[in-house]
Amino acid sequence: MVKVGTHLVVDAWEAPTDLLNDPDRIRSAITDAVCAGEATLIDLCVHQFSPHGVTATATLAESHIAIHTWPEYGYFAADLFFCGQGKPEEAVDFLTTALQAKKITVKEIDRGFSLQANHPEKMKTYVY
Amino acid sequence: MVKVGTHLVVDAWEAPTDLLNDPDRIRSAITDAVCAGEATLIDLCVHQFSPHGVTATATLAESHIAIHTWPEYGYFAADLFFCGQGKPEEAVDFLTTALQAKKITVKEIDRGFSLQANHPEKMKTYVY
Repeated sequence: MVKVGTHLVVDAWEAPTDLLNDPDRIRSAITDAVCAGEATLIDLCVHQFSPHGVTATATLAESHIAIHTWPEYGYFAADLFFCGQGKPEEAVDFLTTALQAKKITVKEIDRGFSLQANHPEKMKTYVY
Repeated sequence: MVKVGTHLVVDAWEAPTDLLNDPDRIRSAITDAVCAGEATLIDLCVHQFSPHGVTATATLAESHIAIHTWPEYGYFAADLFFCGQGKPEEAVDFLTTALQAKKITVKEIDRGFSLQANHPEKMKTYVY
Protein backbone atom coordinates (compact mmCIF):
# COMPACT_ATOMS: atom_id res chain seq x y z
CA MET A 1 0.00 0.00 0.00
CA VAL A 2 1.10 3.55 -0.72
CA LYS A 3 0.12 5.54 2.37
CA VAL A 4 -0.62 9.24 1.84
CA GLY A 5 -1.95 10.15 5.27
CA THR A 6 -3.34 9.18 8.66
CA HIS A 7 -7.03 9.53 9.47
CA LEU A 8 -8.19 9.50 13.08
CA VAL A 9 -11.91 8.77 13.45
CA VAL A 10 -12.99 9.99 16.88
CA ASP A 11 -16.25 9.37 18.74
CA ALA A 12 -16.40 11.13 22.11
CA TRP A 13 -19.16 11.41 24.71
CA GLU A 14 -20.03 12.30 28.30
CA ALA A 15 -19.17 15.90 27.39
CA PRO A 16 -21.05 18.96 28.75
CA THR A 17 -24.19 19.82 26.79
CA ASP A 18 -23.69 23.61 26.91
CA LEU A 19 -20.13 23.31 25.62
CA LEU A 20 -21.21 21.19 22.63
CA ASN A 21 -23.90 23.73 21.74
CA ASP A 22 -21.60 26.79 21.81
CA PRO A 23 -20.25 27.67 18.33
CA ASP A 24 -17.65 30.06 19.78
CA ARG A 25 -16.21 27.36 22.04
CA ILE A 26 -16.23 24.87 19.17
CA ARG A 27 -14.47 27.41 16.92
CA SER A 28 -11.86 28.05 19.58
CA ALA A 29 -11.34 24.32 20.26
CA ILE A 30 -10.86 23.48 16.58
CA THR A 31 -8.49 26.38 15.82
CA ASP A 32 -6.42 25.56 18.91
CA ALA A 33 -6.42 21.86 17.91
CA VAL A 34 -5.07 22.87 14.49
CA CYS A 35 -2.20 24.65 16.28
CA ALA A 36 -1.63 21.70 18.63
CA GLY A 37 -1.41 19.44 15.59
CA GLU A 38 1.10 21.80 13.96
CA ALA A 39 -1.21 22.09 10.96
CA THR A 40 -2.06 25.03 8.69
CA LEU A 41 -5.63 26.33 8.50
CA ILE A 42 -6.92 27.31 5.04
CA ASP A 43 -10.62 27.79 5.80
CA LEU A 44 -13.05 27.21 8.66
CA CYS A 45 -16.84 26.90 8.54
CA VAL A 46 -18.75 26.82 11.84
CA HIS A 47 -22.52 26.33 11.68
CA GLN A 48 -25.07 26.17 14.47
CA PHE A 49 -28.20 24.11 13.97
CA SER A 50 -31.61 24.79 15.47
CA PRO A 51 -32.64 23.74 18.08
CA HIS A 52 -29.16 22.38 18.92
CA GLY A 53 -25.93 21.02 17.46
CA VAL A 54 -22.83 22.54 15.92
CA THR A 55 -20.83 21.50 12.86
CA ALA A 56 -17.33 22.81 12.14
CA THR A 57 -15.28 21.94 9.09
CA ALA A 58 -11.65 23.04 8.90
CA THR A 59 -9.87 22.79 5.56
CA LEU A 60 -6.15 22.30 6.17
CA ALA A 61 -3.01 22.32 4.08
CA GLU A 62 -2.64 18.80 5.56
CA SER A 63 -6.27 17.74 4.64
CA HIS A 64 -9.11 18.42 7.12
CA ILE A 65 -10.61 18.37 10.58
CA ALA A 66 -14.38 18.07 10.98
CA ILE A 67 -16.51 18.02 14.11
CA HIS A 68 -20.23 17.45 14.55
CA THR A 69 -21.89 17.73 17.95
CA TRP A 70 -25.05 16.23 19.41
CA PRO A 71 -25.41 18.22 22.66
CA GLU A 72 -28.56 16.29 23.59
CA TYR A 73 -26.40 13.14 23.88
CA GLY A 74 -23.26 14.86 25.21
CA TYR A 75 -21.63 13.34 22.11
CA PHE A 76 -19.46 14.59 19.27
CA ALA A 77 -17.88 12.99 16.22
CA ALA A 78 -14.53 14.29 15.00
CA ASP A 79 -12.36 13.42 12.02
CA LEU A 80 -8.74 14.40 11.68
CA PHE A 81 -7.13 13.57 8.36
CA PHE A 82 -3.47 14.59 8.16
CA CYS A 83 -1.10 13.98 5.27
CA GLY A 84 2.57 14.86 5.37
CA GLN A 85 3.58 16.99 8.31
CA GLY A 86 1.49 17.52 11.42
CA LYS A 87 0.66 15.71 14.62
CA PRO A 88 -2.94 14.44 14.51
CA GLU A 89 -2.65 12.61 17.87
CA GLU A 90 -1.82 15.89 19.61
CA ALA A 91 -4.77 17.57 17.88
CA VAL A 92 -7.12 14.80 19.10
CA ASP A 93 -5.80 15.09 22.66
CA PHE A 94 -6.35 18.84 22.59
CA LEU A 95 -9.84 18.63 21.08
CA THR A 96 -11.17 15.95 23.42
CA THR A 97 -9.70 17.72 26.45
CA ALA A 98 -11.09 21.13 25.40
CA LEU A 99 -14.56 19.65 24.91
CA GLN A 100 -14.29 17.69 28.18
CA ALA A 101 -15.27 14.27 26.83
CA LYS A 102 -14.95 11.50 29.42
CA LYS A 103 -15.30 8.60 26.97
CA ILE A 104 -13.36 8.46 23.69
CA THR A 105 -12.84 5.95 20.94
CA VAL A 106 -10.26 6.57 18.21
CA LYS A 107 -9.98 4.48 15.05
CA GLU A 108 -6.72 5.01 13.16
CA ILE A 109 -6.97 4.45 9.42
CA ASP A 110 -4.09 4.53 6.96
CA ARG A 111 -5.27 6.35 3.83
CA GLY A 112 -3.83 5.46 0.45
CA PHE A 113 -3.97 2.98 -2.39
CA SER A 114 -2.80 -0.44 -3.48
CA LEU A 115 -0.15 -1.16 -6.09
CA GLN A 116 -1.29 -4.78 -6.54
CA ALA A 117 -2.22 -5.44 -10.15
CA ASN A 118 -4.93 -7.90 -9.08
CA HIS A 119 -6.67 -5.53 -6.68
CA PRO A 120 -10.44 -5.82 -7.23
CA GLU A 121 -12.17 -2.93 -8.96
CA LYS A 122 -14.39 -2.32 -5.95
CA MET A 123 -13.97 -3.51 -2.40
CA LYS A 124 -16.19 -2.75 0.57
CA THR A 125 -15.50 -3.42 4.22
CA TYR A 126 -17.50 -2.72 7.38
CA VAL A 127 -15.70 -1.31 10.39
CA TYR A 128 -17.16 -1.81 13.88
CA MET B 1 -24.35 1.47 20.54
CA VAL B 2 -26.38 4.56 19.71
CA LYS B 3 -25.75 5.21 16.01
CA VAL B 4 -26.01 8.84 14.85
CA GLY B 5 -24.75 8.46 11.29
CA THR B 6 -22.96 6.51 8.57
CA HIS B 7 -19.43 7.40 7.48
CA LEU B 8 -18.11 6.10 4.17
CA VAL B 9 -14.29 6.25 3.95
CA VAL B 10 -13.37 6.10 0.27
CA ASP B 11 -9.96 5.56 -1.32
CA ALA B 12 -10.05 5.68 -5.14
CA TRP B 13 -7.31 5.49 -7.76
CA GLU B 14 -6.46 4.94 -11.41
CA ALA B 15 -8.27 8.24 -12.11
CA PRO B 16 -7.14 10.78 -14.76
CA THR B 17 -4.44 13.16 -13.55
CA ASP B 18 -5.87 16.25 -15.26
CA LEU B 19 -9.30 15.66 -13.77
CA LEU B 20 -7.91 15.39 -10.23
CA ASN B 21 -6.00 18.66 -10.68
CA ASP B 22 -8.97 20.68 -11.93
CA PRO B 23 -10.71 22.59 -9.11
CA ASP B 24 -13.73 23.41 -11.29
CA ARG B 25 -14.33 19.72 -12.07
CA ILE B 26 -13.85 18.81 -8.41
CA ARG B 27 -16.31 21.55 -7.38
CA SER B 28 -18.83 20.30 -9.90
CA ALA B 29 -18.36 16.65 -8.86
CA ILE B 30 -18.84 17.37 -5.17
CA THR B 31 -21.89 19.63 -5.60
CA ASP B 32 -23.52 17.06 -7.89
CA ALA B 33 -22.63 14.30 -5.41
CA VAL B 34 -24.40 16.30 -2.68
CA CYS B 35 -27.50 16.35 -4.90
CA ALA B 36 -27.17 12.63 -5.70
CA GLY B 37 -27.00 11.93 -1.97
CA GLU B 38 -30.10 14.07 -1.38
CA ALA B 39 -28.12 16.19 1.06
CA THR B 40 -28.18 19.92 1.78
CA LEU B 41 -25.06 22.02 1.19
CA ILE B 42 -24.27 24.69 3.81
CA ASP B 43 -20.78 25.71 2.70
CA LEU B 44 -18.11 24.59 0.24
CA CYS B 45 -14.38 25.33 0.25
CA VAL B 46 -12.32 24.31 -2.80
CA HIS B 47 -8.57 24.90 -2.66
CA GLN B 48 -5.90 24.19 -5.26
CA PHE B 49 -2.38 23.41 -4.09
CA SER B 50 0.82 24.20 -5.94
CA PRO B 51 2.23 22.44 -7.89
CA HIS B 52 -0.74 20.02 -7.85
CA GLY B 53 -3.60 18.65 -5.77
CA VAL B 54 -7.07 19.86 -4.86
CA THR B 55 -8.92 19.78 -1.54
CA ALA B 56 -12.66 20.34 -1.26
CA THR B 57 -14.61 20.40 1.99
CA ALA B 58 -18.41 20.51 1.90
CA THR B 59 -20.26 21.30 5.11
CA LEU B 60 -23.69 19.67 4.99
CA ALA B 61 -26.85 19.80 7.05
CA GLU B 62 -26.24 16.01 7.25
CA SER B 63 -22.53 16.41 8.36
CA HIS B 64 -19.80 16.64 5.65
CA ILE B 65 -18.14 15.48 2.46
CA ALA B 66 -14.39 16.00 2.02
CA ILE B 67 -12.15 15.13 -0.91
CA HIS B 68 -8.37 15.38 -1.27
CA THR B 69 -6.66 14.58 -4.56
CA TRP B 70 -3.14 13.44 -5.42
CA PRO B 71 -3.09 13.86 -9.22
CA GLU B 72 0.49 12.58 -9.40
CA TYR B 73 -0.78 9.20 -8.17
CA GLY B 74 -4.17 9.29 -9.93
CA TYR B 75 -5.56 8.92 -6.39
CA PHE B 76 -8.13 10.67 -4.24
CA ALA B 77 -9.43 10.21 -0.72
CA ALA B 78 -13.06 11.02 0.01
CA ASP B 79 -15.11 11.01 3.20
CA LEU B 80 -18.89 11.09 3.28
CA PHE B 81 -20.41 11.40 6.74
CA PHE B 82 -24.21 11.46 6.69
CA CYS B 83 -26.52 11.58 9.68
CA GLY B 84 -30.29 11.41 9.44
CA GLN B 85 -31.63 11.73 5.93
CA GLY B 86 -29.56 11.36 2.78
CA LYS B 87 -28.10 8.60 0.62
CA PRO B 88 -24.33 8.45 1.06
CA GLU B 89 -23.95 5.34 -1.15
CA GLU B 90 -25.48 7.22 -4.09
CA ALA B 91 -23.16 10.17 -3.43
CA VAL B 92 -20.12 7.83 -3.47
CA ASP B 93 -21.25 6.23 -6.72
CA PHE B 94 -21.68 9.63 -8.32
CA LEU B 95 -18.34 10.98 -7.07
CA THR B 96 -16.25 7.98 -8.10
CA THR B 97 -17.94 7.84 -11.50
CA ALA B 98 -17.52 11.60 -12.11
CA LEU B 99 -13.81 11.40 -11.23
CA GLN B 100 -13.39 8.23 -13.32
CA ALA B 101 -11.67 6.08 -10.68
CA LYS B 102 -11.12 2.48 -11.79
CA LYS B 103 -10.20 1.11 -8.35
CA ILE B 104 -12.23 1.92 -5.24
CA THR B 105 -12.27 0.80 -1.64
CA VAL B 106 -15.07 1.86 0.70
CA LYS B 107 -15.01 1.36 4.46
CA GLU B 108 -18.38 1.81 6.13
CA ILE B 109 -18.23 3.00 9.72
CA ASP B 110 -21.18 3.42 12.07
CA ARG B 111 -20.67 6.63 14.03
CA GLY B 112 -22.04 6.95 17.55
CA PHE B 113 -21.43 6.07 21.15
CA SER B 114 -21.78 3.28 23.69
CA LEU B 115 -24.31 3.12 26.50
CA GLN B 116 -22.32 0.45 28.39
CA ALA B 117 -21.45 1.67 31.87
CA ASN B 118 -18.16 -0.24 31.82
CA HIS B 119 -16.93 1.22 28.52
CA PRO B 120 -13.24 2.15 28.94
CA GLU B 121 -12.40 5.86 29.16
CA LYS B 122 -10.24 5.64 26.04
CA MET B 123 -10.14 2.98 23.39
CA LYS B 124 -8.02 2.91 20.23
CA THR B 125 -8.29 0.58 17.28
CA TYR B 126 -6.36 0.31 14.03
CA VAL B 127 -8.27 -0.22 10.80
CA TYR B 128 -6.54 -1.79 7.81
